[in-house]
Amino acid sequence: MALALPTPSLVVDLDVLEENVEDMARRSQELGIALRPHAKTHKSPELARLQVAAGAAGLTVATVSEAQVFADAGFSDLFIAYPLWVDPEKGRRLRALAATATLAVGVDSAEGARALAAQLGEDRDRVRVLVEVDSGHHRSGAAPEEVAELADVAAHAGLSVDGAFTFPGHAYSPGAREAVAAQEAEVLARAAAALRGLGLRAPTVSGGATPTAAAVVAGSMTEMRPGVYVFGDAQQWELGATTPDRIALSCWATVVSHSGGRVVLDSGSKVLGADRASWATGFGRLLDHPDARIVLLSEHHAVVDDLQGPLPPLGSHLRVVPNHVCNAVNLADAMTVVQGGRVVATWSVAARGANT
Amino acid sequence: MALALPTPSLVVDLDVLEENVEDMARRSQELGIALRPHAKTHKSPELARLQVAAGAAGLTVATVSEAQVFADAGFSDLFIAYPLWVDPEKGRRLRALAATATLAVGVDSAEGARALAAQLGEDRDRVRVLVEVDSGHHRSGAAPEEVAELADVAAHAGLSVDGAFTFPGHAYSPGAREAVAAQEAEVLARAAAALRGLGLRAPTVSGGATPTAAAVVAGSMTEMRPGVYVFGDAQQWELGATTPDRIALSCWATVVSHSGGRVVLDSGSKVLGADRASWATGFGRLLDHPDARIVLLSEHHAVVDDLQGPLPPLGSHLRVVPNHVCNAVNLADAMTVVQGGRVVATWSVAARGANT
Repeated sequence: MALALPTPSLVVDLDVLEENVEDMARRSQELGIALRPHAKTHKSPELARLQVAAGAAGLTVATVSEAQVFADAGFSDLFIAYPLWVDPEKGRRLRALAATATLAVGVDSAEGARALAAQLGEDRDRVRVLVEVDSGHHRSGAAPEEVAELADVAAHAGLSVDGAFTFPGHAYSPGAREAVAAQEAEVLARAAAALRGLGLRAPTVSGGATPTAAAVVAGSMTEMRPGVYVFGDAQQWELGATTPDRIALSCWATVVSHSGGRVVLDSGSKVLGADRASWATGFGRLLDHPDARIVLLSEHHAVVDDLQGPLPPLGSHLRVVPNHVCNAVNLADAMTVVQGGRVVATWSVAARGANT
Repeated sequence: MALALPTPSLVVDLDVLEENVEDMARRSQELGIALRPHAKTHKSPELARLQVAAGAAGLTVATVSEAQVFADAGFSDLFIAYPLWVDPEKGRRLRALAATATLAVGVDSAEGARALAAQLGEDRDRVRVLVEVDSGHHRSGAAPEEVAELADVAAHAGLSVDGAFTFPGHAYSPGAREAVAAQEAEVLARAAAALRGLGLRAPTVSGGATPTAAAVVAGSMTEMRPGVYVFGDAQQWELGATTPDRIALSCWATVVSHSGGRVVLDSGSKVLGADRASWATGFGRLLDHPDARIVLLSEHHAVVDDLQGPLPPLGSHLRVVPNHVCNAVNLADAMTVVQGGRVVATWSVAARGANT
């Protein structure tokens, strides 16, 4: 495939993307749970529409401003899966959102719950609240044994406590998937029991991430929130959560140099992102050269090693798979969508930079 | 200082910035060389105007689209310090640029030089060409012994070969500064001798980066191209190239969680960038807490460890220093400029995402 695109450019393979969207929808149906995909991965209303058309019950977002972008684009069921600290300015924005969309937010502290309640004021009952519980990633979230007390404080502050959620981010480690999914299920079960003990009959129990989606314990959650599955990336490839033929987004890059007998591409960290997990084998991979690794990455240079065979010529194009697609997409204004070797659409990264 | 800003937001301390701008201008004057600061760090015409007012001879940029932004903003002397691969589309853009600005570009291969000459056509003599030489970073650039032949090919293709440049990026390693500056000087001397041997009387000899700026060997170059010095960042802090009181940009962040007895901030990799050099002590630092380290960074969470003293309260604001400021700025649409505790300006990151 040859595309007349300036490089570096993010390109989406629509056929592969649709397969990924449908597979995850089918997976959630088989599990009998709702799919609430995380839109921080793609930040694109066009892509979110495909997810909803395939059966997604709503969207997950990370920030109030991301929620605003998707609400403005017509999405009416949004969960901000984040322990928000709500000051007057965020409170105003949340109340405006709650007037147009079914809204849920996270809390992981008593102080956070009280601040949320104070800022929502009379709109308190228009926003569902999910208690974040730490299932072992040790990022944010209450400890499992703190869930009951925190939910009680939130309810007494007048909030509509509706359930619990967790992010099993420690599944982002080779071989960790099964054990982390089991741990997630156990912690969510404890949290759900705590909430039922407070009188909540059927709490929302929300978990899941792309690496654990294939290992979700049946009955352990009522919804899952994977994000990266739509595109895949080099991290998922190296974790065994996807295969190269199922990677739907790559960065088209030009060979600009053969310095030192290696390939140097024009896809640097300002288009790929600089993510490199401790277990990653490089700064990104090449879709059509599985042995190759990006071994040196600066803002506008990606130096490639272990490229088998003759060096691709200067001026030729290669398809680079970013390590972490969420951060790559957030660097672009738009994605070029191709199908059958032709450009069929350009999707705006409408929520790019929506961090507040 | 308390600012009514939504977090996370990039904030520039104008007094510190101006001190940094003036100090580097003075340093280049003392060395008797031109200062051509790299604008990829700030991507801001407002900031570039301060640099030019302090005596910068022109600007360095990394891409054709960055050059377009600064040319449109009125900057008339631009060096694209990159081994461009020029196809017809880039050729058209370069010719348009050369009609409005004094333009220089890099080459590091014979094929690249021939492609450049072919696309520039009759405008060949309107663009100065600098041969990139590898001074030990082993990213791009010709080997020192290849400079003469490459310059000869470029000249025979009709290009206006004007000098040589290098980027001593291997100075980004603790303790490397002096040795790398010496190596840079030696390689630039060889390149300059090769160019004089081809009949070029007074070649432009361009080097320098922020870590080596304090160690430039007098007489080894005619201009230097540091970029990060305007702001500083956690990398420069850890390399000893700056001190916290001279860091002019920080990300204002809110404490959103005390999960696990640690501080969790809302400044994740989508605002700080995910850069972490192998020698870095974390994913970023806190300007007012030198012992603290960001030990876990995801898209919207920064988990802080080793914060001495009582935990800053939920909802309080901390100033985060990104590891690599160039990538942090490229994630923002604008920077808030403060002086004397007040917001005095908002600078657009006009060249954000200008990667092509």
